[in-house]
Amino acid sequence: MAEAKVLSGAGLRGQVAGQTELCTVGKTGAGLTYRGYDVRELAAGAIFEEVAYLLLYGELPTQAQLDGYLQKLQGMRDLPVALKEVLERIPKDAHPMDVMRTGASVLGNLEPETSFEQQRDKADRLLGAFPAIMTYWYRFSHQGQRIECNSDEATIGGHFLSLLHGKKPSELHVKVMNVSLILYAEHEFNASTFTARVCASTLSDIFSCVTAAIGSLRGPLHGGANEAAMEMIQRFTSAEDATAGTLAMLERKDKIMGFGHAIYKESDPRNGVIKGWSKTLADEVGDTLLFPVSEAIDRVMWEQKKLFPNADFYHASAYHFMGIPTALFTPIFVCSRVSGWTAHVFEQRANNRIIRPSAEYTGVEQRAFVPVQQR
Amino acid sequence: MAEAKVLSGAGLRGQVAGQTELCTVGKTGAGLTYRGYDVRELAAGAIFEEVAYLLLYGELPTQAQLDGYLQKLQGMRDLPVALKEVLERIPKDAHPMDVMRTGASVLGNLEPETSFEQQRDKADRLLGAFPAIMTYWYRFSHQGQRIECNSDEATIGGHFLSLLHGKKPSELHVKVMNVSLILYAEHEFNASTFTARVCASTLSDIFSCVTAAIGSLRGPLHGGANEAAMEMIQRFTSAEDATAGTLAMLERKDKIMGFGHAIYKESDPRNGVIKGWSKTLADEVGDTLLFPVSEAIDRVMWEQKKLFPNADFYHASAYHFMGIPTALFTPIFVCSRVSGWTAHVFEQRANNRIIRPSAEYTGVEQRAFVPVQQR
Ligand SMILES: CC(C)(COP(=O)(O)OP(=O)(O)OC[C@H]1O[C@@H](n2cnc3c(N)ncnc32)[C@H](O)[C@@H]1OP(=O)(O)O)[C@@H](O)C(=O)NCCC(=O)NCCS
Ligand SMILES: CC(C)(COP(=O)(O)OP(=O)(O)OC[C@H]1O[C@@H](n2cnc3c(N)ncnc32)[C@H](O)[C@@H]1OP(=O)(O)O)[C@@H](O)C(=O)NCCC(=O)NCCS
Repeated sequence: MAEAKVLSGAGLRGQVAGQTELCTVGKTGAGLTYRGYDVRELAAGAIFEEVAYLLLYGELPTQAQLDGYLQKLQGMRDLPVALKEVLERIPKDAHPMDVMRTGASVLGNLEPETSFEQQRDKADRLLGAFPAIMTYWYRFSHQGQRIECNSDEATIGGHFLSLLHGKKPSELHVKVMNVSLILYAEHEFNASTFTARVCASTLSDIFSCVTAAIGSLRGPLHGGANEAAMEMIQRFTSAEDATAGTLAMLERKDKIMGFGHAIYKESDPRNGVIKGWSKTLADEVGDTLLFPVSEAIDRVMWEQKKLFPNADFYHASAYHFMGIPTALFTPIFVCSRVSGWTAHVFEQRANNRIIRPSAEYTGVEQRAFVPVQQR
Repeated sequence: MAEAKVLSGAGLRGQVAGQTELCTVGKTGAGLTYRGYDVRELAAGAIFEEVAYLLLYGELPTQAQLDGYLQKLQGMRDLPVALKEVLERIPKDAHPMDVMRTGASVLGNLEPETSFEQQRDKADRLLGAFPAIMTYWYRFSHQGQRIECNSDEATIGGHFLSLLHGKKPSELHVKVMNVSLILYAEHEFNASTFTARVCASTLSDIFSCVTAAIGSLRGPLHGGANEAAMEMIQRFTSAEDATAGTLAMLERKDKIMGFGHAIYKESDPRNGVIKGWSKTLADEVGDTLLFPVSEAIDRVMWEQKKLFPNADFYHASAYHFMGIPTALFTPIFVCSRVSGWTAHVFEQRANNRIIRPSAEYTGVEQRAFVPVQQR
């Protein structure tokens, strides 16, 4: 099923760029594992903070460790005044990933990592602060409200929903947020994580690494895909319309966002999980449109192109059913993947050589300089 | 002289990660070329804007094109009010590269790149705005002054000095700034440029790419080296002290910042150029300490380790002689390298595949999940 493709060609595809203990992607017999655990088992039985702890501290926490970790993260949720003032200056129509990137960068000015010994605390701080960074900006710019950045919710997933909606989220929604954050937490040397590692290899600070990674995740070929998938799904008025529309897009050679993968060959192990939860949420809200539309696109893509939904596709409808604005889809990805990014930064630092590949030169031959007066 | 090392091993050293028409580094017979021109000829006969134009627009400009380009860049120097307000909220003791990274990120919120057709204008905007981003913050945080972000200076190098010192710079200093910006403009797939290309490969926006690149350049193994070199040079009280001190550092296996290179084997072609100008400036200010100290370190490094100064080492003293605070050394590198970064973003976009390498897994075998209650 999730066997790795035979890889070659551009984009460093299939070339080993370093070592990791964090994750396997598409290894035979194992779809996706975090430090040896199948992501599907983690999504079924853990909360996101257990997974973040696993990635950052090396093993799943005991109950006492988990309680302590939850408490630590809860104490790291509020934002410094200067950061709030910056967020208030970012316009409503800004790209939310630009806001996240800026939030991480500003925090790096206000609470810098001055020694690598602080790396775990800084990673936890980013985990704690990101939900408030996105919702403080969102609710100020869209609703004119200066929200309180703390909540009573135990988990990051619940905390985010609580800040966004200004009320206690349902148990189902908290569960789905935890599943989603777990599915997105880590994925080996994907483009944003690799960005973080290249940055870390210069021995730069952890805020620079995370800021850089957010910039990469923003791209529509990477994290931006869940947003783009939502926009596409919403354009269709029925499953039939979606079938016809997808066929037309394929005819035009459009890229269909939320499908295909650089490594997986036949399916993305995260898809089945989030698709199941999206169906549960569809039933909860009585949806008769978005889920059938999603399934219709899914069917056409497989029949026509043998392309399968990746982690992003059914995330779109799942988030939508929980009342999350499309603009915040990719920022949620940040709230989760920061655990994987920072774990990779720790690894890079522990065994570092600056990442500096070569290029094939395809330009003009050497030529003599001519001063501007003689050109 | 500047022949490429035989490369192997970690850090993707010697592995081709893509194509470029922009630059050769360490190609036999050619130390460093930008689109076919030897960087030493460019540094001798051009101003920085000609080189930026060469990188971004493909050829050296005619006089009319250069005049137009200078005028365009001059019109892009001032900062939006919201950006100034953000800069005013960054503390005095922040790392200046954190300020640059944040400045680029905030500008991406206020003046986003909404289509790749805008890429040249956005690159020019960053070139125009960076000198004000760094000096506005620096003079506000260190001197409590809100400076005017425009100046009468024709070039970016002169403009920067004028904003920093609040007076018209000398012709010599403007010349050296142009030389320096030319030497730093472009350097193939170095870590920060590669960061920008990885980010670009997700089809993210140009501000994300530049913000990410700044994060990588910040590291002491990369752009941070000129700052670190200055701090070391200033610790020594004489050439003799420097000789003894450098020997002691080598004994302790310290890394000496400003020496060595991932690609060049025997010398860095940029070094001779900046060393010459540093000497001229030393003579101008009547220095009898920093330049001799620099030469003493240089001598020991070659005799003991066959390590040579890279572009950064004599930049330290050169900048210092022009009254530039050490904190701004690496930010100046940004003002220059943004030309190379953005030119690489254009190239990546023109022939893109997402950059997504693989990793060698060194972690634990697959294992069964155990719920927290049973751990
Ligand atoms: C993920 C992705 C970037 C992988 O890139 P990649 O490794 O270069 O992709 P592949 O080499 O497997 O592509 C093989 C072919 O399928 C096509 N293809 C891949 N994904 C496609 C999609 N979503 N829609 C239409 N065609 C697609 C490619 O264009 C390529 O066609 P070609 O050989 O005619 O050029 C790519 O599948 C994609 O762009 N997907 C859409 C964006 C997305 O969902 N990203 C989130 C990833 S988690
Ligand atoms: C530039 C740099 C990162 C290149 O890294 P690299 O490609 O991994 O370096 P190399 O493989 O050539 O290193 C070869 C050996 O020389 C040593 N070395 C390299 N530069 C050194 C320096 N500046 N001081 C002391 N030793 C140095 C390395 O530690 C290595 O020793 P080892 O084999 O015992 O481990 C490295 O030279 C360095 O750290 N220089 C100082 C920072 C600097 O000036 N950066 C600016 C670059 S423009």
